[in-house]
Amino acid sequence: MPALAPSAPLLLTPGPVPLSEVVQAALTQPVIHHRTAAFERFYQGLLEDARYLFQTEQQTCCVIGSGTYGVEMCMRSLFRTGETVCIGENGKFSQRWTAYARHLGLRAQAVLRPWGEAIPTEAILEALTPQTRGLILTHCETSTGACLDLEEVVYAAKTRYPHLLVVVDGITSVGALPFYSDAWQVDAAVVAAQKALMNPAGTALIALSEAACASLVPTDASDFTNLHHYVHHAQRGSYPYTPPVSLLYGLKAALEHIRHVGLPAIWRQSHEASREFKRGVLALGGQVWGGTPSDSLTAFDLPEVSMDRIRESLERDHGMVLAGGQGELKGRIARISHMGSTGVEAARHCLGALEEILDKTP
Amino acid sequence: MPALAPSAPLLLTPGPVPLSEVVQAALTQPVIHHRTAAFERFYQGLLEDARYLFQTEQQTCCVIGSGTYGVEMCMRSLFRTGETVCIGENGKFSQRWTAYARHLGLRAQAVLRPWGEAIPTEAILEALTPQTRGLILTHCETSTGACLDLEEVVYAAKTRYPHLLVVVDGITSVGALPFYSDAWQVDAAVVAAQKALMNPAGTALIALSEAACASLVPTDASDFTNLHHYVHHAQRGSYPYTPPVSLLYGLKAALEHIRHVGLPAIWRQSHEASREFKRGVLALGGQVWGGTPSDSLTAFDLPEVSMDRIRESLERDHGMVLAGGQGELKGRIARISHMGSTGVEAARHCLGALEEILDKTP
Repeated sequence: MPALAPSAPLLLTPGPVPLSEVVQAALTQPVIHHRTAAFERFYQGLLEDARYLFQTEQQTCCVIGSGTYGVEMCMRSLFRTGETVCIGENGKFSQRWTAYARHLGLRAQAVLRPWGEAIPTEAILEALTPQTRGLILTHCETSTGACLDLEEVVYAAKTRYPHLLVVVDGITSVGALPFYSDAWQVDAAVVAAQKALMNPAGTALIALSEAACASLVPTDASDFTNLHHYVHHAQRGSYPYTPPVSLLYGLKAALEHIRHVGLPAIWRQSHEASREFKRGVLALGGQVWGGTPSDSLTAFDLPEVSMDRIRESLERDHGMVLAGGQGELKGRIARISHMGSTGVEAARHCLGALEEILDKTP
Repeated sequence: MPALAPSAPLLLTPGPVPLSEVVQAALTQPVIHHRTAAFERFYQGLLEDARYLFQTEQQTCCVIGSGTYGVEMCMRSLFRTGETVCIGENGKFSQRWTAYARHLGLRAQAVLRPWGEAIPTEAILEALTPQTRGLILTHCETSTGACLDLEEVVYAAKTRYPHLLVVVDGITSVGALPFYSDAWQVDAAVVAAQKALMNPAGTALIALSEAACASLVPTDASDFTNLHHYVHHAQRGSYPYTPPVSLLYGLKAALEHIRHVGLPAIWRQSHEASREFKRGVLALGGQVWGGTPSDSLTAFDLPEVSMDRIRESLERDHGMVLAGGQGELKGRIARISHMGSTGVEAARHCLGALEEILDKTP
């Protein structure tokens, strides 16, 4: 057996979140072979449940990889060398999409804002031209907690440029924040398993509009990075490669749970935990980071203390693991999840611990 | 909970194989955060255990994806557009590497043999020139059961062309058949988790020689498909993206088990199960497919019966699932695993069932 801490601390990071109980039970079910009618029925059921998650009646599929890979696959599969894409960039993850777009040979136009600031709709609109083919948006910047008004931005952008393909990094939003792929006219949305779905990291679910599907290009080669293969196979419930059957069991269990509880109730849980925690941080004299902060996590600081020290105390004395800042925010903030099971209770629990730590700090 | 068959049949396919018990227990352990010293120690331990698996003292890493993706990543990361690679092609999977090489813009020279035939060393040698940069070999063709004399081929090829980079699809071989990355001078070897490691599909382990590592090219962009990122991070125990922590737990448990039992004992188990099953098939008047057939699986037919009918009877009446033929072998063969827990006992069990089915067949 792997040598792990016997009493693992409570993971409150904004992904990965702890596996839910239904997911744990599902993961170890007997593996079925993937070239069977039983697998095809199962996978079609999963893709149908994923439609509910994304609030779409269009195409869904599942890819093996992290959330980053899901977004990279969308960019690689939907756009061609030399095409222009506009990217809202205000944190570590959106920065990744700009670098990747350049790497792909796309003309990448970044709409830059300082890390943590929200990106105003007007700034995106100003950057778009009739030549812009794609718009890459990060719904919630996990590195800073900043949330985009996705509905408004996409509405404004598509009203002016209906041919745009809008790709949304919904990694830390779908399943935690209100998200309506079809109603908001999103063309490609990506969520990662280890976030609101409370699953092991290793898969991403993707929702694609008809326009997105129409711009996929088949290749003779297998090419793991081409979404066309996944979509083509998904239409009959099959998978282009050996699918991660055990992980799909876990996803199916989570999606069924979400359907059963209902998205509005789940979104409300995140919202309430977020509100409680953010109020608590302000009451402790701290700051909540992120312009229009997201309800899926809180990025925060506290007055006159090193946030890395605070995180060390939380783990050592209170058995709670929070994430730190990334890139230029290293050491300056801590980040806590409000997704999945890390709800109001976890928020209160953590606030209590923070209060205790601050009381002891001279 | 996912709607699965309440009593799942025994999976005897040559991947996926059933999850082992140590793997099942490991998968649901509490997830640790990946940006921690605890994760780095854990991952470094895993990579060290993987060195034992591949019999290498050089670099190992783990990627999220199927085995196909692992091989594609090696090809994409090690070779540059316009370079010449030689590919031994005698089945569905090796065919995939040729198509993928062309897709990447490489000059792909396939050494073709009919599906099921082994590829002679001389044929590979004849195809190589001083300009050939890479040699892509499939150790065991899972589609036909044909095994390559990897040690001999690589020795001959490297003796003549020491600068060659040899990439080996070891997906259905590493951990089941004798395999010595360093001693055999393999530059990149790939194994998939759902084969001899008895893990969920979704990850691949890769071993890279110094020469292979030296030919990786860093990029500014994240780029999930560039092995450089994984290797660069692996050297300090970190991971370029969110790692599949739960799956890594499963891999670690399997690798520790393999170290504990010892590779020779594990290779012998596969060999004995394979010998027993192949003898049984011949005794039933059937044929074993694959020139120099592999010990990790048996591809076979039986006289005057449809092999798809046989597989249906096995599943319906005996609760055993075998794989069928792929591509041009569809309906003509069945394939059974001898990897992991599907050892001598499973081989006998299946032979008994086959005998019974043939007795009943008019």
